[in-house]
Amino acid sequence: MKKAVVLLSGGLDSATALAIAVDQGFECYALSMDYGQRHSSELDAARRVARAQRVKQHSIMPIALDMFGGSALTDTEIEVPVESAEGIPVTYVPARNTVFLSLALAWAEVLGARDIFLGVNAVDYSGYPDCRPAFIQAFEKLANLATKAGVEGDEFHIHAPLIDWTKARIIQEGGRLGVDYALTISCYQADAQGRACGVCDSCRLRAQGFRDAGVPDPTSYQQQPTLL
Amino acid sequence: MKKAVVLLSGGLDSATALAIAVDQGFECYALSMDYGQRHSSELDAARRVARAQRVKQHSIMPIALDMFGGSALTDTEIEVPVESAEGIPVTYVPARNTVFLSLALAWAEVLGARDIFLGVNAVDYSGYPDCRPAFIQAFEKLANLATKAGVEGDEFHIHAPLIDWTKARIIQEGGRLGVDYALTISCYQADAQGRACGVCDSCRLRAQGFRDAGVPDPTSYQQQPTLL
Repeated sequence: MKKAVVLLSGGLDSATALAIAVDQGFECYALSMDYGQRHSSELDAARRVARAQRVKQHSIMPIALDMFGGSALTDTEIEVPVESAEGIPVTYVPARNTVFLSLALAWAEVLGARDIFLGVNAVDYSGYPDCRPAFIQAFEKLANLATKAGVEGDEFHIHAPLIDWTKARIIQEGGRLGVDYALTISCYQADAQGRACGVCDSCRLRAQGFRDAGVPDPTSYQQQPTLL
Repeated sequence: MKKAVVLLSGGLDSATALAIAVDQGFECYALSMDYGQRHSSELDAARRVARAQRVKQHSIMPIALDMFGGSALTDTEIEVPVESAEGIPVTYVPARNTVFLSLALAWAEVLGARDIFLGVNAVDYSGYPDCRPAFIQAFEKLANLATKAGVEGDEFHIHAPLIDWTKARIIQEGGRLGVDYALTISCYQADAQGRACGVCDSCRLRAQGFRDAGVPDPTSYQQQPTLL
């Protein structure tokens, strides 16, 4: 069985990316990051999803991105916005996907995995630069220059299967593969019980996605999101 | 004053890269990694070098690469070799420079720095794939696709000033810039007092470099290295 490393945040997108990797027949190693995000319920969600999908191993890597700050997600002095703004939002975490993919690459090389999956999505990507196809392609190229395996011709492949899907399509596809979205958390500021705020961008995109997919939204919201 | 982030391991090469960044007029932010390397005297050396060069700030980021293992430098079950072997050696740490540059990029973006220095060296680079010019170029390209700054046209530059220098030239250049190499540690397995083993590849390359440069070697060795 071929191995894959799957970046798993505990959100809707990465849970779907994991289900796709499993469906493609990979033996999956899930990697989550404890990077000083505002709440730990995201990591609880990642644990539940990893268990439900029966991954071979789930590692949670502590990585102190809050040492650097610079984002509403890692710096408690910056507030999470309740309205979508123009341009790249304050929830952007500098170089986050570069750091996460680098660590996935490190683990993959040790495991002998040559496939890395992540759930980035460019359609409703909130303006993050590191969710675009050009970024994924550049990272794949880098991976094959950076590593012993790549240099020896045993190439890495970075899979971003959701990259051009709508949220509705992601939810439909995940449903078909049996993903239980009640286990996942998308909210930027869920409470200790894992209830979503209902007002942040991420909650509103999620709620709209379920509506567009025609699928009941299993999310527990503190406040019902206004749709987009 | 323009800011730069400088990756600082505590070894001879990164101390020289830092001195070059200072000499070029950058306000320097040094970044070291506590990545489960075999000994902490490397980090003590990084602290001494950062102080001697009067960096603006020195951050030590804990990063548990030993969770993954796969290298003689992070896995105590793999022995550090005493003889140079063909190909990429077991001291190769999977994706290490990719991980380190990603973290430097994250900090640089938060600081408003657009220049990142690292002391990689391709001439006597021990066969590591992530010390080659093609890797540095691919990372610079990635950095400008991955970040808000890069996307907005405020481009990052990755500086690897030593990349095609011999060890002797590095030592001569560093000497000219006032680097005190007695503060640095290159050994893969220095003891608790910071004394170099004298038998690993890194010790032998260093000793040979001082010999070729015609500069007295200030290193404290447990055993005098045999030259290459």
